[in-house]
Amino acid sequence: MRALRWDGARLALALDAPDPRPGAGEALVRVHLAGICRTDLEITRGYLGFRGTPGHEWVGDVLAADDPALVGRRVVGEINLACGVCPACRAGLGRHCPTRRVLGIAGADGGFAELIAVPAANLHPVPDTVTDREAVFAEPLAAAFEILDQMPGLAGARAVVLGDGKLGLLVAQVLAGAGAEVSLAGHHETKLARARGLGIRTGPPPPGADLVVDASGAPDGLALALALDRPRGTVVLKTTVAAEHRLDLAPAVINEVTILGSRCGRFPPALAALAARRVSVAPLIDAVYPLDDAVAAFARAATPGTLKVLVDAKA
Amino acid sequence: MRALRWDGARLALALDAPDPRPGAGEALVRVHLAGICRTDLEITRGYLGFRGTPGHEWVGDVLAADDPALVGRRVVGEINLACGVCPACRAGLGRHCPTRRVLGIAGADGGFAELIAVPAANLHPVPDTVTDREAVFAEPLAAAFEILDQMPGLAGARAVVLGDGKLGLLVAQVLAGAGAEVSLAGHHETKLARARGLGIRTGPPPPGADLVVDASGAPDGLALALALDRPRGTVVLKTTVAAEHRLDLAPAVINEVTILGSRCGRFPPALAALAARRVSVAPLIDAVYPLDDAVAAFARAATPGTLKVLVDAKA
Repeated sequence: MRALRWDGARLALALDAPDPRPGAGEALVRVHLAGICRTDLEITRGYLGFRGTPGHEWVGDVLAADDPALVGRRVVGEINLACGVCPACRAGLGRHCPTRRVLGIAGADGGFAELIAVPAANLHPVPDTVTDREAVFAEPLAAAFEILDQMPGLAGARAVVLGDGKLGLLVAQVLAGAGAEVSLAGHHETKLARARGLGIRTGPPPPGADLVVDASGAPDGLALALALDRPRGTVVLKTTVAAEHRLDLAPAVINEVTILGSRCGRFPPALAALAARRVSVAPLIDAVYPLDDAVAAFARAATPGTLKVLVDAKA
Repeated sequence: MRALRWDGARLALALDAPDPRPGAGEALVRVHLAGICRTDLEITRGYLGFRGTPGHEWVGDVLAADDPALVGRRVVGEINLACGVCPACRAGLGRHCPTRRVLGIAGADGGFAELIAVPAANLHPVPDTVTDREAVFAEPLAAAFEILDQMPGLAGARAVVLGDGKLGLLVAQVLAGAGAEVSLAGHHETKLARARGLGIRTGPPPPGADLVVDASGAPDGLALALALDRPRGTVVLKTTVAAEHRLDLAPAVINEVTILGSRCGRFPPALAALAARRVSVAPLIDAVYPLDDAVAAFARAATPGTLKVLVDAKA
């Protein structure tokens, strides 16, 4: 099969990559579309030392599975491949299993390929009313909804989102949907214009926020978030950057701020929001490349000002 | 009166400092004992740009107050001087009033003096069974109890305290009193021995902690805390250091850690614990200097390995 491979030094399309062989409990999925995430770009800069096929945002249909009812279904899938037996897994926190592999990120090939093997337990059927171009956002949208799992009761909260990238635009919509007063700050006028098109307020963020979400991916994001937060407010760290932060944490102590690390989320709230049209993802798509041009798609995704770039594995 | 003064460059005892003139609602307190805190040492290195008389840990007796019932009482006092009318103050969070002054730290003279003026509303009478040498720990002990206000339900939690200084020893006792399994880590064998004398386990901290309290005052404290914390665990930042941290925050995001800034606390739980002998502070006292030797007391407090140094304003 065709698959985009990263060998630690070079990103290249393999035309004769071996087909994945599903293990026990795994389904074989034919990929339709896969999205390029900032983490994928970080991987090609050495993040986490991953080798193999990247791609953790994807939608496809099931070619083979133990459960015949699953075969032929259009699906998206959670990306953490948990052991299932450790204390974290038994507590329902497979996303934090210490020996987990992560699809396209750590120890498991991902979705920039024609085929992918995924534990059937990780799959979620996609409602018919949700298109492939929408469903491919399920994974990052779930990560945005994770904030609501960590912080229920945001109705009326004054929220600031730092970062006008893909995740920032998803987070801003999710927080607004939860009833927060959202203001989004970023440096790219074209992206900010798209945010305004989604009904999100932009401009210099007001200080004294109840909640600041750092989705900027910038080393100074936390310091800015701390400056905008009210005493006893919350900062949500939403991006992992392959760099060290240099910052003075005294404001966090003096103002007794809560800093919440936030990563992957559950898929059902994301799929429900897409089906109900409560979140718009189409305006976030900048380009769709065929799998054969996946390397060019990565280059495009790395261009400043670009939002979502998709790779079409059926083309 | 005699008072220890910091002018931004030099710490010196003034023999003829003007007596404080209590304003509306303020009481005049004769200081018995005052404790030197790490923050005081930081002040003499330029922290917060404070000028005046430092000292925010003190015990004394009331010489004058609007309420005659208060006169003659032995008291300790909360150090945040709040405006009383802003939204934070109306919400009962005067400790976070944006225009607050802080006794001996910001905009108000503190307790390394014979006399001090303090809002009567800030004062707490000291139970007769609590000695001056115990009561002078009310402020840092309240800061330790603040963790329980922020994180109720610690019974059975696996907790690690980083730092074998004064605050670390108080925090460890408070967490143990709340039913946590506490392990304390530090670099000073003499301090660790005192911790063991208080019944606190020491040694290499076990990983996978539910809660790690960074009371180390070290720039690498947070990174170490993140390494010891379990996924979805909590790190409490308990010290403000006048330095920048250089750290990789990716572990906080990946493990969805909650980082809580924690500062001052309510006094009543601290006074109750001292009265009930649930916390031992006597083993933390290294020396008591008369006020005339307060500069030498600061030098002693700055010596590595030293725990609490007290200044006796009646001597």
